[in-house]
Amino acid sequence: MSVQDLIKQFQFEKVLAGNPQTKSIVLLGKIDNQDAIINIEKSHFIIPDHDFKLTDLVNDAEIINQNDVYYWSNALLKQTLEQSPAAKLNIIHPATETHIKKYSTQKLHYIIETPEMYQKYVVPYIETMKGSRIKWVYNILFEGKESETFIHHDKDPESGFVLLPDMKWDTLNMESLYLCAIVNRKDISSVRDLTKSDISFLKHLRSTILSIIEQKYPLKKDQVRIFIHYQPSYYHFHLHIVNVSHPGLGDGIAIGKAILLDDVIENIELVGDYYQRRNIGYLLGENHGLWQIEGYRNTAS
Amino acid sequence: MSVQDLIKQFQFEKVLAGNPQTKSIVLLGKIDNQDAIINIEKSHFIIPDHDFKLTDLVNDAEIINQNDVYYWSNALLKQTLEQSPAAKLNIIHPATETHIKKYSTQKLHYIIETPEMYQKYVVPYIETMKGSRIKWVYNILFEGKESETFIHHDKDPESGFVLLPDMKWDTLNMESLYLCAIVNRKDISSVRDLTKSDISFLKHLRSTILSIIEQKYPLKKDQVRIFIHYQPSYYHFHLHIVNVSHPGLGDGIAIGKAILLDDVIENIELVGDYYQRRNIGYLLGENHGLWQIEGYRNTAS
Repeated sequence: MSVQDLIKQFQFEKVLAGNPQTKSIVLLGKIDNQDAIINIEKSHFIIPDHDFKLTDLVNDAEIINQNDVYYWSNALLKQTLEQSPAAKLNIIHPATETHIKKYSTQKLHYIIETPEMYQKYVVPYIETMKGSRIKWVYNILFEGKESETFIHHDKDPESGFVLLPDMKWDTLNMESLYLCAIVNRKDISSVRDLTKSDISFLKHLRSTILSIIEQKYPLKKDQVRIFIHYQPSYYHFHLHIVNVSHPGLGDGIAIGKAILLDDVIENIELVGDYYQRRNIGYLLGENHGLWQIEGYRNTAS
Repeated sequence: MSVQDLIKQFQFEKVLAGNPQTKSIVLLGKIDNQDAIINIEKSHFIIPDHDFKLTDLVNDAEIINQNDVYYWSNALLKQTLEQSPAAKLNIIHPATETHIKKYSTQKLHYIIETPEMYQKYVVPYIETMKGSRIKWVYNILFEGKESETFIHHDKDPESGFVLLPDMKWDTLNMESLYLCAIVNRKDISSVRDLTKSDISFLKHLRSTILSIIEQKYPLKKDQVRIFIHYQPSYYHFHLHIVNVSHPGLGDGIAIGKAILLDDVIENIELVGDYYQRRNIGYLLGENHGLWQIEGYRNTAS
């Protein structure tokens, strides 16, 4: 079926999600009596060159208000499928329950995880997320997978790590530079495992990564943020390295999920067992595996 | 001059800023030989109701690729000035240098502020930001300004505070709830001033704010994040309170600027002079007053 036909036959049922910041919307409906998901996101502007005229972009406008030197208006924009489409439209058809769950807005909770909750619920959960769940990480570290993209590879089992572009980076636009460093050590599942004995390891990671970035990219040390996630998306220690000017990181860089590597190092320097003693606050979606654990859920809320 | 005429006469010079996440662009040019700034941001989708047909929204589409159940396409959208404009277009004309600076992308730096830098450069800077610069805060706290919007007002000079909607909140949409709590105490310029003696004060703020939110709004305690900023935008202690589901906070909620109130409390409980001893890392734009101080700038970079 052509994409035009899929659009014509789509029977709208409900809105699964919408984001006024990114100007995107996700619709659930039926095509041919089977579930279908339509995801529409408005396109970014094409950055104009020297010959640009504003009337090449704007078809018409209507004033809303004016005050002193300020004018607000609504506008119509020129659009063509080839050169300047108004939006990207993606279809999933037929869509499964898993697709629908993935694209639905999930309710978020701010959890205060005590050391007791960590021991009782999170440690056993982490065990279930090892083995085949992180086979892909070991493939990168020890089997040469994705090695054609490696920026740095030090095979030392104690201090070594792989530095590679994150999936989210197009590898071209410096403003959105996003790298990932995955350590060879297998004994750190998350920040909860870090103690005084890891300080020199963490400082070695920081200084090596910053040196590589200064060598390989037109960036200085003060133009990146290095951070970790808690809860991380996989339980093998890794760092996120991102340009300070990256425009759209959302909750990936927000408090309640991201922790600066500098904070981690200074905290352990001040209090050796900082991350074993602290309550840690973080956002958790109801689709997360931890929220499925009844005891955890009841203690958290 | 009509907005249509302003658009026709705009002579493009350069792009001041662009944001692929929010789909917005800021252009500098001339109208009538005077500087003009054009800010265009694509509009969000209007959430459809039950009678909605996808063809009411999408005019045409062209397939980019297809794989299994997944289809990607470019699309053209229906647009009308009255019902569904493609974008908001704002004009500033004539624009001053200050306007141009404000709307230009500023270079960001990740600063590691040592306690020495704080004493030598930041403390004197903060002094210059007191007095008339925070008169508006005292007007709210002590002169009844904006009191019609107050959600809570406790006049106790030690423990009291005002809770009110932040300017950024439309006061209607619960998902983007954004409140601000400003304390009566005048002796806390920033997190750097907080010590062991403030623990009970901070806990009182936290519990009072969470109780009020549960009473006044359809939200539970685990549905908000309470945080502060360092550097703050004004040097009189205040808290930000935001729905965990708020879709677009950008760097306002990011590490390197935002700090969870829970982290502040726990850190001081662990180490009484935590915020006097720590190096604190934060993002600073080159337009910030601190960056204008040569000694600070040279020490920071």
